[in-house]
Amino acid sequence: MVRIDKLVIVGVGLIGGSFALALKATGAVGRVIGVGRSARSIARALELKVIDAAGALDAATLSDAGLVLLAVPVGQMPAVMRSLSLLLGERTIVTDAGSTKQDVVDMARRELRGALPRFVPGHPIAGTEHSGPESGFATLFDGRWCILTPPPGTDEKAVETLVRFWQACGSQVEVMEAAHHDKTLAITSHLPHLIAYTIVGTVADLEEATQSEVIKFSASGFRDFTRIAASDPVMWRDVFLNNREAVLEMLGRFAEDLTALQRAIRWGEGDKLEALFTRTRAIRRGIIDAKQA
Amino acid sequence: MVRIDKLVIVGVGLIGGSFALALKATGAVGRVIGVGRSARSIARALELKVIDAAGALDAATLSDAGLVLLAVPVGQMPAVMRSLSLLLGERTIVTDAGSTKQDVVDMARRELRGALPRFVPGHPIAGTEHSGPESGFATLFDGRWCILTPPPGTDEKAVETLVRFWQACGSQVEVMEAAHHDKTLAITSHLPHLIAYTIVGTVADLEEATQSEVIKFSASGFRDFTRIAASDPVMWRDVFLNNREAVLEMLGRFAEDLTALQRAIRWGEGDKLEALFTRTRAIRRGIIDAKQA
Repeated sequence: MVRIDKLVIVGVGLIGGSFALALKATGAVGRVIGVGRSARSIARALELKVIDAAGALDAATLSDAGLVLLAVPVGQMPAVMRSLSLLLGERTIVTDAGSTKQDVVDMARRELRGALPRFVPGHPIAGTEHSGPESGFATLFDGRWCILTPPPGTDEKAVETLVRFWQACGSQVEVMEAAHHDKTLAITSHLPHLIAYTIVGTVADLEEATQSEVIKFSASGFRDFTRIAASDPVMWRDVFLNNREAVLEMLGRFAEDLTALQRAIRWGEGDKLEALFTRTRAIRRGIIDAKQA
Repeated sequence: MVRIDKLVIVGVGLIGGSFALALKATGAVGRVIGVGRSARSIARALELKVIDAAGALDAATLSDAGLVLLAVPVGQMPAVMRSLSLLLGERTIVTDAGSTKQDVVDMARRELRGALPRFVPGHPIAGTEHSGPESGFATLFDGRWCILTPPPGTDEKAVETLVRFWQACGSQVEVMEAAHHDKTLAITSHLPHLIAYTIVGTVADLEEATQSEVIKFSASGFRDFTRIAASDPVMWRDVFLNNREAVLEMLGRFAEDLTALQRAIRWGEGDKLEALFTRTRAIRRGIIDAKQA
């Protein structure tokens, strides 16, 4: 069983808070110190016992930390890395929970200096549409996958430790290259979010009377998209800016397929529609079988 | 409290089955007779006590029915209407649960003859991705909206009775014109399904190794689309063929918005992305406030 005395969470939101709660629940950590830019979030996290104390990006907080999790939007990552690079203890392991990984690996290479070998980039494939410390819960990662993308030169022991921590949260861990992660997530996560944001935006542009009817009758499908499109705006802005190539590539494929379907509808090609709608059911079955439904 | 002795359900699937169960639970119906093309579905519906007996499109089944619900894909509606038009009792009310309404109104005008004034077209805004009698449950319509689209000339008492039946299922009822229904549902339901089918289709075209990773990591967003894209293929084929104009109009708007977002990503316009992602959150709040989340 893995255990550390002091865990530092930079960014006490949904992911940081849930990680703290999950590890506390298993007894894998002693004290949890929270660091955040928002005084309100830190106060809430203390109140909810998500963290035990508030810290800062200083030596007192960081020099004796066993593990530091960076759970801030990717856009804030370079500044945070720069601040902590010289303050970390010699054995402190650092990880992150950013939704994109190649950019985070590059940032770490530029900013983390001596701590670089003990930085294990990570991405837990879990979340909800809610943000903030009050949205965290101990079982968020249970049964979900966590992807680690350590570049060559990363301390193997640090990777092993991280694997054990995520397993303690109930996750299964997969190690892969950062670029492969970004390509895969462009399909499973970034494109779905982009599409959800778009359709909800299309509705937001309708005249008000129509919009209120759309809300009223949203249980017929639209509702599910609004849940996804309620995710954190800054985090998602950074995802699209930082995984541009892979997202645009998948978006191109999607747009082609949409045009083909549009054409089938216009020309009344019922057979084509039915064939596609039957094929897509198989993918759903795959997800149910993989226990990710 | 509304009550009839004999309810006939043509099509014992998710919607027909749930309607039968909901009305049985409230005591609003005496006996429920199921009519269906699939012997297996009828046997299952009997076994699960969704229906009390099996019937057919004949005088014995229809002549003394208080209410007949047509819960078959819209493509099968004309043949069903033709078969029952001369067999219905003089006071039998007929309704349907088709996802498109203008086409159903037109079919009824062509096929229902003397029974036309007692046909009240309807569409319960509720459902799941499951099909078949085993997927029905008594609370499916509870707290959801049901839209009725009686054309001019429909018996007002028949409309009133239908309103009360849907209220007995726990639904709120809205009466509107069929064309308006179809425009509204094109946005709330048909476009979301089309998009979900498209993205799941895009994934189905990826090479197998990638596909299995997409399934594994689907909890990051893709999963929610597969649920929608697992809906009944024949029903959805008919929806797109029968509400072509409205769907293509909304799809055009969506495609424009998607192109604009694509451009913003390509040119790294973070402000535009963040502004859109913030606006879409407000729509989600509207849905939560309307208790349709």
